[in-house]
Amino acid sequence: MIGASICTIGDEILIGQIVDTNSAGIATELEKNGIKVRKMLSFADDKDEIRKNLDAELNESDIVIVTGGLGPTKDDVTKKVLFELSRSTRYVENTAQAEVIHEILASRGLDTLDTNRAQALVPDNCEVIVNRLGTAPVMILHTERQGRKVSLYSLPGVPFEAMGAMDDVISDIRLHYHTEDIYHKTVMTYGIAESALSDMLEKWEGALPDDIHLAYLPDPLKGVALRLSVFGGERLIQEARCERELAGLRKILGDSIYSEEGERLETVVGKLLKKCGKTLSTAESCTGGMIASLITSVPGSSDYFLGSVVSYANSVKHGVLGVSDEILKRSGAVSEECVRAMAEGVRKLTGSDYSVATSGIAGPGGGSEDKPVGLVWVGVSSEKRTEAVKFNFRNDRLRNTQRFAASALDTLRKFIELEVNN
Amino acid sequence: MIGASICTIGDEILIGQIVDTNSAGIATELEKNGIKVRKMLSFADDKDEIRKNLDAELNESDIVIVTGGLGPTKDDVTKKVLFELSRSTRYVENTAQAEVIHEILASRGLDTLDTNRAQALVPDNCEVIVNRLGTAPVMILHTERQGRKVSLYSLPGVPFEAMGAMDDVISDIRLHYHTEDIYHKTVMTYGIAESALSDMLEKWEGALPDDIHLAYLPDPLKGVALRLSVFGGERLIQEARCERELAGLRKILGDSIYSEEGERLETVVGKLLKKCGKTLSTAESCTGGMIASLITSVPGSSDYFLGSVVSYANSVKHGVLGVSDEILKRSGAVSEECVRAMAEGVRKLTGSDYSVATSGIAGPGGGSEDKPVGLVWVGVSSEKRTEAVKFNFRNDRLRNTQRFAASALDTLRKFIELEVNN
Repeated sequence: MIGASICTIGDEILIGQIVDTNSAGIATELEKNGIKVRKMLSFADDKDEIRKNLDAELNESDIVIVTGGLGPTKDDVTKKVLFELSRSTRYVENTAQAEVIHEILASRGLDTLDTNRAQALVPDNCEVIVNRLGTAPVMILHTERQGRKVSLYSLPGVPFEAMGAMDDVISDIRLHYHTEDIYHKTVMTYGIAESALSDMLEKWEGALPDDIHLAYLPDPLKGVALRLSVFGGERLIQEARCERELAGLRKILGDSIYSEEGERLETVVGKLLKKCGKTLSTAESCTGGMIASLITSVPGSSDYFLGSVVSYANSVKHGVLGVSDEILKRSGAVSEECVRAMAEGVRKLTGSDYSVATSGIAGPGGGSEDKPVGLVWVGVSSEKRTEAVKFNFRNDRLRNTQRFAASALDTLRKFIELEVNN
Repeated sequence: MIGASICTIGDEILIGQIVDTNSAGIATELEKNGIKVRKMLSFADDKDEIRKNLDAELNESDIVIVTGGLGPTKDDVTKKVLFELSRSTRYVENTAQAEVIHEILASRGLDTLDTNRAQALVPDNCEVIVNRLGTAPVMILHTERQGRKVSLYSLPGVPFEAMGAMDDVISDIRLHYHTEDIYHKTVMTYGIAESALSDMLEKWEGALPDDIHLAYLPDPLKGVALRLSVFGGERLIQEARCERELAGLRKILGDSIYSEEGERLETVVGKLLKKCGKTLSTAESCTGGMIASLITSVPGSSDYFLGSVVSYANSVKHGVLGVSDEILKRSGAVSEECVRAMAEGVRKLTGSDYSVATSGIAGPGGGSEDKPVGLVWVGVSSEKRTEAVKFNFRNDRLRNTQRFAASALDTLRKFIELEVNN
């Protein structure tokens, strides 16, 4: 199995100002493609440090992936190190990248400055993958260490540019190295905590064939993903073997499984709505627009999503959504009655087929013994019926809001599935 | 200045399953206390790997902080390496930690098993900081390398336990090393791209005293942060020296600076509204609720934020916000006329003092030559006036939406500042 090191360059990481998410993203891609990440490291935007660390990693790993240390104000230190490592003699312009740079700046109404143009210059002994999402190209160095083939890939530091380049990087690795195929199957579950899930699955997990690996991947917006992995072998055979195990999993977890393709909740909800030609609206208090934001993050969501009323103030719950003053006085905004009225209100206001509503207490302040921080009511409504469910979480403001939003999407998903299947 | 390495141990980090947030948290604490983080690294939960990497880091840094590789199911590999590195001869029980272990388990209704009890055993040549938040103690090794004093701190992997131990770790470092203070000033700017900013600041930057360092930190939701750093010296003097440089920066950048305290746009908008006792609502098409979501991510935002209408469908723009069919027919949803009507509509609907509206094309589909992907109109409105501004970006769907939302917040910020200052 070929081994990789992932290096991130940047003072902002070393001083703790930003959390390095590039490494995890890159590691996920490498791992999916049968490349083992041995080590991750972050070091300073300094030529000597970069040179020393890249040298050391090339001596130990087959593949070294570097992000950062490129860009108009960064003095392009990584590029200078690549120039030396590749024993280049001059910089040559990559015309395709130069064009992208010009286009990007022109689309922002900006002139191409010399500092911008310089980004298209690459050491002549490096290969290039054009970065269509930004101005700094991906540079590749294929070389040798102690008779061993090694490769260095230099990616931009901006996360979406770095991740955008990974498909091409993987293709290039596959071209130069023998990578083993891995077959993955990612089953998405919602509503069961990781530890409870592991108890429920203990027997099933224990009976899995030795070469089928199981990983639990929890995420507040996605629930717990269960990933089955098999290395090597014929894809069709491995697929069939995993399918056999999945049959048992489905029996245990039932409708807690929302996707067997690793999709997100908002994608699954969108597909369901598209399939049955129905529309959706949301009424959000504590989630403050996060549910609408998640739903509209899916391209094509305008086909089924009509809109949302974020009714943060009670005056908006009453004035726009039509929640009665009585309900607000009697039960308060965080109550079953209120989310039912909110869900019905937004459905009628927008004329949508389905709606989902939330009202809860994200914290840090605002909780009471009766209604503690982390409590949320979720309401779902269609022409036929309206339902409300209560959830309790115990996290910080952001985490609570994310769990509220995901619970609302999952409640909606089950509600629609039930109506569609009946 | 003393240098540190931060090491995180764990396969779940290397396969990209979890993002390492411990390193950033620890780095922030070290950096605030004048300790320079040279390097961060993550490697596998394997004794040889741990030994090799810790050895290498002790040869280069004064302080090495390790998290993870402890715990009942982890086979305590880090502890075994510490035993060797410290040339210990036996394990001794730390009675204070043994008591904490017993208390924690008892409070969960569990008996103390041998595997739990073993966690209180530490190599006899190591010092201990009791971990009151969990079962694994912090172990300290003070030793020498090439006549140089070096120290290793082994922390638990659970983030809140690791962070909870940092105060004691810092105290111990201060006891053994002379640490220098660092003064930072983070100036937030919006609306000027990093490369243009660096051109504008070239002369000012060139005239900065050698010991004042400048860093550019771009982020789609925050704009570009400019961070000034000075090491050592008297805090008040360094503050005054930075203040002198800032005066020049303010002249060049004017109202492109939205905070000198490193705050986010939504925080600054919230403070402005609180200060003048005004309320806000939003009407969002392409941003799909992201602006509302950002605004409500600030604790206490219910004091000024009334709500939002996410008018994804034209029927909601018309039916809820009152945008006339004529406008939608004549100019379309992505137009100056439409965002003006949306902003005015939501302000009247919710009764807020201010409002901001967006309509644009986030992509990937839906663009035309006239109205390309990345185009957004932003409308802002108060009782006195309504304005609209156009922006062009060229990113993927998520990035475009983030830039749309941030541009809307910045437009709103300037709009309110102008009214408040007049």
